[in-house]
Amino acid sequence: MQRSSIIVAGGSGKRMGGPIPKQFMLVKGKPLLCWTIEAFRAFDPAMPIIVVLPEGQIAIWKALCIGHGFLVEHDVVSGGEERFHSTRNGLAVVKGDGVVAVHDGVRPLVSKELIARCFAAAEEHGAAIPVVPITSSVRLVEGDSSRAIDRTGMRAVQTPQCFQVALLRAAFAAPYDPAFTDEATLVERTGTKVHLVPGEEKNLKVTTPVDIRLAEILLS
Amino acid sequence: MQRSSIIVAGGSGKRMGGPIPKQFMLVKGKPLLCWTIEAFRAFDPAMPIIVVLPEGQIAIWKALCIGHGFLVEHDVVSGGEERFHSTRNGLAVVKGDGVVAVHDGVRPLVSKELIARCFAAAEEHGAAIPVVPITSSVRLVEGDSSRAIDRTGMRAVQTPQCFQVALLRAAFAAPYDPAFTDEATLVERTGTKVHLVPGEEKNLKVTTPVDIRLAEILLS
Repeated sequence: MQRSSIIVAGGSGKRMGGPIPKQFMLVKGKPLLCWTIEAFRAFDPAMPIIVVLPEGQIAIWKALCIGHGFLVEHDVVSGGEERFHSTRNGLAVVKGDGVVAVHDGVRPLVSKELIARCFAAAEEHGAAIPVVPITSSVRLVEGDSSRAIDRTGMRAVQTPQCFQVALLRAAFAAPYDPAFTDEATLVERTGTKVHLVPGEEKNLKVTTPVDIRLAEILLS
Repeated sequence: MQRSSIIVAGGSGKRMGGPIPKQFMLVKGKPLLCWTIEAFRAFDPAMPIIVVLPEGQIAIWKALCIGHGFLVEHDVVSGGEERFHSTRNGLAVVKGDGVVAVHDGVRPLVSKELIARCFAAAEEHGAAIPVVPITSSVRLVEGDSSRAIDRTGMRAVQTPQCFQVALLRAAFAAPYDPAFTDEATLVERTGTKVHLVPGEEKNLKVTTPVDIRLAEILLS
């Protein structure tokens, strides 16, 4: 089945406390986003990889690719206001049917094995996402009070979220809902059950300076 | 108000994949537990610090302290079968009233500021715990299906969990319930509302080899 990947890198870098968008932060001397693209290219040397970036960052990204001699083949499309719009813009350039992975640009540590697992599960089940157990105790804040909640059945969702292209297109035909959290939830609303596959502890979402340092270790 | 701290170090090291209990793993050349004790000693040079260890590890711990020239004052008591019993054993040797912190032995990165915040909030409110937002999407597994749940109000619980000693004693007078997850939940059952204070992203629970490497960086 034809495979494509959409790597969504829409972050403005606010949580990093600096002016550099987090997907451009240097990890071992190279922008974070390069590592993520390389992970997908390592999985499949020929698959289309569509990178979605805010319009205002595309020229910077191209300059960074030249500056770092980053030659891994990928397409770039302009993102939208929210993650929803960015994924939709990426999906608009996916050709044909088959399956598509939607991945966070700031998850550079995804393994080839995990990408393969998610694609295979989406081919079989229509929609598949990686999840990991939640290891800390969890409380739910309700007004000015809170209560412990059972974490046993709870799972933290990672990416790549993989879908049969036709299903994802049908899901994104819906109008934008501010309650959008991830692609899986959107697909689910069209009646498709989302299959869960085991994620990876090390597949972290790099969103803080501490994460950057951890990513550097894990990529060593 | 009199302050005491109980540091619970009951892990057997199974998740580390090795025979060394995780609290004894070396971080920058020194057992993890030493770092945690030092964090509390740095907060208060005189406060009683009670370290709870499995009976079979106490002799090893004393040998490690000698071997590493670790002279930071603390008491050691023998733990029980589960976390519940270990905390209860530690609490049994807390003198007087005042407030007590219960802390994971494998959270060496707790700051003085966080310890201070938790103690102060417990002095005012009776029970206080540090929490951090949950940043990933969350799903709830139900049978062979799952559904997205709203993470907005959800918080991951850290330690130190701080309590007025009388409240914690009253809570631990209850018989052991296998559903025990943390001290806060137990105290809550006696009718005391648990106050939430902002935790720290870097206050990680060191439970995997990756965490050890991250802790080494953060302690540098």
